Amino acid sequence: METLSVGQFSLVANLMSFTIATMGASALFFFLSRDSVAPQYRSALTLTGLVVAIAAYHYFRIAESWHDAYALEGGAYVASGAGFNDAYRYADWLLTVPLLVIELVLVLGLAKEETRSLSTRLATAAAVMVLLGYPGEVAESTGTRIVFWVLAMIPFLYILRVLFTEFSSAIDRQKENVRGLVANARTVLLVTWSFYPLAYLGPELGLSGSSAETFVQVGYTIADVTAKAGFGMLIYAIARAKSEAA
Amino acid sequence: METLSVGQFSLVANLMSFTIATMGASALFFFLSRDSVAPQYRSALTLTGLVVAIAAYHYFRIAESWHDAYALEGGAYVASGAGFNDAYRYADWLLTVPLLVIELVLVLGLAKEETRSLSTRLATAAAVMVLLGYPGEVAESTGTRIVFWVLAMIPFLYILRVLFTEFSSAIDRQKENVRGLVANARTVLLVTWSFYPLAYLGPELGLSGSSAETFVQVGYTIADVTAKAGFGMLIYAIARAKSEAA
Repeated sequence: METLSVGQFSLVANLMSFTIATMGASALFFFLSRDSVAPQYRSALTLTGLVVAIAAYHYFRIAESWHDAYALEGGAYVASGAGFNDAYRYADWLLTVPLLVIELVLVLGLAKEETRSLSTRLATAAAVMVLLGYPGEVAESTGTRIVFWVLAMIPFLYILRVLFTEFSSAIDRQKENVRGLVANARTVLLVTWSFYPLAYLGPELGLSGSSAETFVQVGYTIADVTAKAGFGMLIYAIARAKSEAA
Repeated sequence: METLSVGQFSLVANLMSFTIATMGASALFFFLSRDSVAPQYRSALTLTGLVVAIAAYHYFRIAESWHDAYALEGGAYVASGAGFNDAYRYADWLLTVPLLVIELVLVLGLAKEETRSLSTRLATAAAVMVLLGYPGEVAESTGTRIVFWVLAMIPFLYILRVLFTEFSSAIDRQKENVRGLVANARTVLLVTWSFYPLAYLGPELGLSGSSAETFVQVGYTIADVTAKAGFGMLIYAIARAKSEAA
């Protein structure tokens, strides 16, 4: 692990704490807002709240691990030897990434069979994607890292294909006032999710040193806040718009 | 206690943290989902939520105890001298195992007298089973361990007998659409609960060393997640199906 400046260490530590507060508050907001949407959209808000609640827990662990991994020595943060536990991020994604695609499907209020088919396939692909990423993340060799990156891209591309083909026809069947919101949610998902495979490839793209480590941690954290709390606000807006139309 | 590799120690530690998140999120899900089932099935969901909430608490303690029990020395995790506290698992089971059988009985919506009789007998047998297991778990001598294993198997076999005789007739009286779900829940209970007496017998079956210790901790944890959160999802599915039929 790289030696970090006080500014770099603190930027990451403070952003992690900010994220605990944001995720925790978002969870309360989504849970409390369940009764302001029509009953058929409540399960979408329940899952939205669970995603950010699970993330709040993991950011608490991630922040703890970040503090344990470094020790202040001679005006800089040097590796303490305890190591930073990457597994918390993957444990978080394994639980939340499938839930994120299910909440997007649920809020559309499609027919039962279509909901079941879309959410089963998308959630399974999402879980497989995360599971395939982890062995590469913790591997030492560049070859292994790249093999698992390529393997994990297969379910990711499958998810994108479903979202931009079958899912498009489901969007077209939505009322005028929610079509734009659903398309925005899909775009947020595409843009934020693309950050993760890029950050993963950082070392292979020649990124190294303390700036790269800081960049990756800040990037993952901003991507998580946007993909979970930001995306959740769009799900909430869709559920509200659909409830008003009903 | 055995010296563990970094990989073995971390696998168990990460799985325990994953379980805290899973149990905690499941508790929120079951509590929030109470309003999406008919009033007569809400108490089943309340108990389902309590089981995973109690497990989330105990996994927090179990994970703390796991971290305290080992110290990183020369690239391996050696016993710190603090010991790993098995009692948290038994305290958890003493509370949750009786609740698990009661939630299965409650969700069937049987007549009051039948519910009372089944749940009292099954919950009592479940509590006695856990209480009889503990003296054996902490005993040094193989003889004592086996005596308590045999004693604890008596209430376990009684539970299985009730589930596959009296309980079967209660399943037959269920509507078509829930019969399969209830039979699945009973199978999950049988399969997951069978893991515990097998893991207990590990040392007697010649399992020892760091791989055996890792296997037992991973096994107990996966069995707990399946028997509590997974089983709970089946209870939720039964409650939903029965509410829709009503």
